Amino acid sequence: MSRDVANRRLRAGIVGGGKGSFIGAVHRVAAELDGQAEIIAGAMSTDPQRAEESARSWFLQRSYASYQEMAEQEARRPDGIDFVIIATPNHMHFPVARAFLEQGIHVVSDKPMSLSLEEAREEVALVERSNVIFALTHNYTGYPAVRQARYLVQQGEIGEVRKVIVEYIQDWLMKAEEETGNKQASWRTDPKRSGIAGSVGDIGTHGENLLEFVTGLKIASLSADLTSFVKGRQLDDDANMLLRLENGAKGLLTCSQIAAGEENALSIRVYGTKAGLEWHQMEPNTLLFKQAGKPVQVLRTNQGYMSDESKAASRTPAGHPEGFYEAFANIYKMAIADIRRVESGEKPQGGYPTVYDGLRGMLFITKAVESSQKNAAWVEMKDE
Amino acid sequence: MSRDVANRRLRAGIVGGGKGSFIGAVHRVAAELDGQAEIIAGAMSTDPQRAEESARSWFLQRSYASYQEMAEQEARRPDGIDFVIIATPNHMHFPVARAFLEQGIHVVSDKPMSLSLEEAREEVALVERSNVIFALTHNYTGYPAVRQARYLVQQGEIGEVRKVIVEYIQDWLMKAEEETGNKQASWRTDPKRSGIAGSVGDIGTHGENLLEFVTGLKIASLSADLTSFVKGRQLDDDANMLLRLENGAKGLLTCSQIAAGEENALSIRVYGTKAGLEWHQMEPNTLLFKQAGKPVQVLRTNQGYMSDESKAASRTPAGHPEGFYEAFANIYKMAIADIRRVESGEKPQGGYPTVYDGLRGMLFITKAVESSQKNAAWVEMKDE
Amino acid sequence: MSRDVANRRLRAGIVGGGKGSFIGAVHRVAAELDGQAEIIAGAMSTDPQRAEESARSWFLQRSYASYQEMAEQEARRPDGIDFVIIATPNHMHFPVARAFLEQGIHVVSDKPMSLSLEEAREEVALVERSNVIFALTHNYTGYPAVRQARYLVQQGEIGEVRKVIVEYIQDWLMKAEEETGNKQASWRTDPKRSGIAGSVGDIGTHGENLLEFVTGLKIASLSADLTSFVKGRQLDDDANMLLRLENGAKGLLTCSQIAAGEENALSIRVYGTKAGLEWHQMEPNTLLFKQAGKPVQVLRTNQGYMSDESKAASRTPAGHPEGFYEAFANIYKMAIADIRRVESGEKPQGGYPTVYDGLRGMLFITKAVESSQKNAAWVEMKDE
Amino acid sequence: MSRDVANRRLRAGIVGGGKGSFIGAVHRVAAELDGQAEIIAGAMSTDPQRAEESARSWFLQRSYASYQEMAEQEARRPDGIDFVIIATPNHMHFPVARAFLEQGIHVVSDKPMSLSLEEAREEVALVERSNVIFALTHNYTGYPAVRQARYLVQQGEIGEVRKVIVEYIQDWLMKAEEETGNKQASWRTDPKRSGIAGSVGDIGTHGENLLEFVTGLKIASLSADLTSFVKGRQLDDDANMLLRLENGAKGLLTCSQIAAGEENALSIRVYGTKAGLEWHQMEPNTLLFKQAGKPVQVLRTNQGYMSDESKAASRTPAGHPEGFYEAFANIYKMAIADIRRVESGEKPQGGYPTVYDGLRGMLFITKAVESSQKNAAWVEMKDE
Repeated sequence: MSRDVANRRLRAGIVGGGKGSFIGAVHRVAAELDGQAEIIAGAMSTDPQRAEESARSWFLQRSYASYQEMAEQEARRPDGIDFVIIATPNHMHFPVARAFLEQGIHVVSDKPMSLSLEEAREEVALVERSNVIFALTHNYTGYPAVRQARYLVQQGEIGEVRKVIVEYIQDWLMKAEEETGNKQASWRTDPKRSGIAGSVGDIGTHGENLLEFVTGLKIASLSADLTSFVKGRQLDDDANMLLRLENGAKGLLTCSQIAAGEENALSIRVYGTKAGLEWHQMEPNTLLFKQAGKPVQVLRTNQGYMSDESKAASRTPAGHPEGFYEAFANIYKMAIADIRRVESGEKPQGGYPTVYDGLRGMLFITKAVESSQKNAAWVEMKDE
Repeated sequence: MSRDVANRRLRAGIVGGGKGSFIGAVHRVAAELDGQAEIIAGAMSTDPQRAEESARSWFLQRSYASYQEMAEQEARRPDGIDFVIIATPNHMHFPVARAFLEQGIHVVSDKPMSLSLEEAREEVALVERSNVIFALTHNYTGYPAVRQARYLVQQGEIGEVRKVIVEYIQDWLMKAEEETGNKQASWRTDPKRSGIAGSVGDIGTHGENLLEFVTGLKIASLSADLTSFVKGRQLDDDANMLLRLENGAKGLLTCSQIAAGEENALSIRVYGTKAGLEWHQMEPNTLLFKQAGKPVQVLRTNQGYMSDESKAASRTPAGHPEGFYEAFANIYKMAIADIRRVESGEKPQGGYPTVYDGLRGMLFITKAVESSQKNAAWVEMKDE
Repeated sequence: MSRDVANRRLRAGIVGGGKGSFIGAVHRVAAELDGQAEIIAGAMSTDPQRAEESARSWFLQRSYASYQEMAEQEARRPDGIDFVIIATPNHMHFPVARAFLEQGIHVVSDKPMSLSLEEAREEVALVERSNVIFALTHNYTGYPAVRQARYLVQQGEIGEVRKVIVEYIQDWLMKAEEETGNKQASWRTDPKRSGIAGSVGDIGTHGENLLEFVTGLKIASLSADLTSFVKGRQLDDDANMLLRLENGAKGLLTCSQIAAGEENALSIRVYGTKAGLEWHQMEPNTLLFKQAGKPVQVLRTNQGYMSDESKAASRTPAGHPEGFYEAFANIYKMAIADIRRVESGEKPQGGYPTVYDGLRGMLFITKAVESSQKNAAWVEMKDE
Repeated sequence: MSRDVANRRLRAGIVGGGKGSFIGAVHRVAAELDGQAEIIAGAMSTDPQRAEESARSWFLQRSYASYQEMAEQEARRPDGIDFVIIATPNHMHFPVARAFLEQGIHVVSDKPMSLSLEEAREEVALVERSNVIFALTHNYTGYPAVRQARYLVQQGEIGEVRKVIVEYIQDWLMKAEEETGNKQASWRTDPKRSGIAGSVGDIGTHGENLLEFVTGLKIASLSADLTSFVKGRQLDDDANMLLRLENGAKGLLTCSQIAAGEENALSIRVYGTKAGLEWHQMEPNTLLFKQAGKPVQVLRTNQGYMSDESKAASRTPAGHPEGFYEAFANIYKMAIADIRRVESGEKPQGGYPTVYDGLRGMLFITKAVESSQKNAAWVEMKDE
């Protein structure tokens, strides 16, 4: 492929994300926020009427009945889409990605990357064989403060990492929402559409990705205790894990969707031989930097003292809060820049989560479930 | 005017906001965030090259050398803009607004509304004579938690208001930034472009508007002590005020651009005969509700217990932080909805700051400066 | 006087503070906390039975029917008290102090120092003529973080002070508690026992003292707007003030006892040409240090980096919270050390609020009321 | 024993706690804070000179060279001590307790209760055979907000407990302090004086005790991963644990003394089927109550809505912060009240941690170490 993308917004298509979806609108806002792309086509639902209505409410130029049709037709059009956004339940992530990858259309996919580890491996191979940009929306790494946290670790400011505590706790599934017609709840608790894990796949993987992103270290092994607290639920809605990182650091990771009164409490704390770091998604513009024996420093996004990379992820002056959309948009910003580069014959520069992060995520899910089935025995987190 | 706006994004033009402007990009993101409008034309700078470059970087379809030209030509085109965004320094707010108002083009203008109280009065008259939507971006009232605060006051949940404390303090002008080539600082400290007030006009008016919005009460009189702490600065960079509200409540309002270490610390606290309210712009998704003798309640945006109006101003589930852009976009969302209504022959419904808020703001500036010149004597805040 | 105090706890007597008093028990705990003094005698109530019962419940060795009797008898005893604690309503502060001062007995008195400015002047004269230690329990200056704040100002770390914001807001008098038999409320709202001011005397003076303590600057003039919100109340329950400090800095001071939902929210913020400081009494072990352009530093009591003076005011390792009692005890600790010094023929070293702070407090009350009576006209805060 | 304790402060002796000790002074302040007891005798150090100097600096009436001598002599005196305070390193807790228990003297002991599980069992037997009060200073359960947390659980306000997260993290041993002559560090890292665990015994047991106190549930089994991060250190300085409670709830417990930048960060979060609770020791006067679907409530100590038990543990009005000493003093307050009861022939009422809590603590240490030695295998936490 080689499109002329120089003097225009990129054209995007979306699969899924129709009415009733939370994440569809998030992708739209995030993809378009920097004025670098516009969604013009969609296969927004498997239900034709919903697909049509959804497309119309977004003023899309073209609405398709199926993603396959969209992939084929858009690939042929001179004004076809430059990239596709995958905003479906988990089980469709891989088939949809494959359809567009095979047409040479760039992909921005929701996570987890696939339904199974096998699919994930196949997806890696597909992307490696292609010349397309593949970005996975582990959106929380898009926050400027998270970028700064990684930067401080990279600069050696916290010394050698010893201890990591990652939490991602919510309460929205503390009752059997899946039995009340809640679409979001219903696919997430259904193994056929969600995969072998519930909370571990839905939010635990964000924690795992955040941990490996910030520390630059791989989880070497884990001991996981998964629970389904809500009666009749087939997948886990809570998990507690002990972690051992590749450098000998130790850690805890917990995810839960039954933690009463918690909204979307993702946080990470990293402690090294020199200093500690603390970040909370719900107050995302602040990063605590805790040097031993010195006053804790409250680092704030887009202040002059932040790293260039962190500042590049900020759009407003310090004190003008940026949030979930803006972080999500940062993943798009970097992916779109890479699509422009690739289409102009330049080398992509990355910065966003890739197919390899997707593979780690599927490995994490697989190993966590395996460990829990063995009564929380230690399981190595590597792909044999 | 009567355009068919039913099945498309609205078309917007922008005056000002070219390269180097902070607020230009804010307007673009905010105007487009909900997928209901697209900026397609601009007169983005009085410097022709900067205008052209700015327009190109935004992929605008049409770039004009002057706002007058843009007003005339766009009014004539069948595919002309539906509304104009005014993102210039203060002294241009009124002339630009007048040019577009006279062409029957809807206006979204930055604040303060004009350079002088006289202009503000004229602007009110112009809007009243026209059939256009005029929205003023007192963006902080766009926050869902601020909407909830107003709702609780309206519902009588805090009883009769007795005491109000409003702060808007920053530090970015604590040194003579205007002498270092900082464009933002240079026009804001220049009476010709900024008007008779510095911090009082730039941020104090946001405080005044927020106070009257949330309490539903007018400031009856004020006693203001304005200071220019930075040597050589012509306009105030700090102000402390005593307030008396129309119902007998008392208050404090302080604004400052020399408060070392403060970013964009706008906050409001309201105390009534039954309960108190507290909101901080830098943690915007939280509203504290303090009923006497009961536990303080931490109200969080988009939770089920929030008012319909507040929820309508939220886009993400609770715990997924929304920030400055999203609040700004709420002003646009409401204004755009009204533009659609007016163009379809329906009655506008409001909800966003109007030309009357603009008049109050200019009155506030005028009276605060007058009081300070009289050694903080009490001055009534009404337009004789 | 010259007692041998070397190898024993000091002996204290208390006037007031009997059953039903809040502050009596505070004085007992604070005076005894460091094991350097013991309360052994008291004239704890004007009601003989309550006096007796109160003394017994504290296991006091001697209970007196009147403070005059106590002053005379204790002065004569070889094992008489070394100092007296005054924990009565305001109107008794001065007469009781005088009685003990005249016997050469050291005094620790509650604030405000007297009922009127005249009494305060007389008290200053009395103390100056005597050789006794006089300490006034402006206890909030006893907090280690407040000491650190003063230290940073003294070291020039914040530069020249420009702006000060002091708040002391509560809600416990938001209803007519004085009509419900609440003893605390009843004397505080009674001009005969409380003096010419309500909230201004009770808590506003703490704010004034804290401001002058931390900044090392005197308030030059003030413009005060006092209000009695609760019907039938004779004294103010709310006040808003503009301040001008002797160096040209500007400020705000507000005190309120009708701020619904507020407990005991005393705070101070100081902004200079280099940095800002922020401290909240309700989270007393933290001091925010806000250097322009650098990360905010969270200073924590008893960390190694704190000043010697601040560390001397801490008793527990960082992270083991100290509170109201411990700060109060710091006033006693310094006063007791000075009593030991004076009794050993050494020079007192101070550090605690003195009779001169008491005079400033009475001046503040007097001038605030005067300003408010003149519709918040500027009044100089100096003793002509 | 049957002493007349009615009209006097109780007389206490102390073993350990001499100069250089942190906890000695804490016990003194806590024991004496409510004016119900006075320390008059001590065997404050095994070094005779330090013992003597320490006693003198506290103005003690009697100083002993050994605890055995003190136990024997005080038991014989008509004015002997009523209870003994044990403030030694761990290895002396049991022998000292035994010496005084055998003399029928009441005991307030530091934790962990003993050096080994065997000693703990023997101590239980000793106390059961005696008629003395035995209190263990798991001081963190003395906080009013912790009492409220337990109360809410007991009242069913959070429903059935599902998930618990307990943390106790510090940084003071992140370097080899034991090699720098730091006495506190040196005994705590020495198996002979500290026992088989380091951080798990020193602070992990506080976490365990807090968890069982608040939830009213026993830990059924645990999987523990203990680490000694500092080179050459024999005992753990960090631990991560998975927990399973007796009712099927799951949990995490982590303790660390190498968490850079953390002071004394003990916290507990409990999530039930109806609501959650959150408490942080470093902001101890606040308890968050998180009912699903309702605003989070900020419960504050000594507000009218708190439970009677919680209010009984508060001494100051809401907003006047109480801290570490006051919580510690609550353990003493309850224990002293029980000593008075027992001496008056009444039944003790408890409320403070007992010898059975001490046994649980030793069991926790023993099982955590056992689990870790088995590579974090699940180990039941029961005494076979």
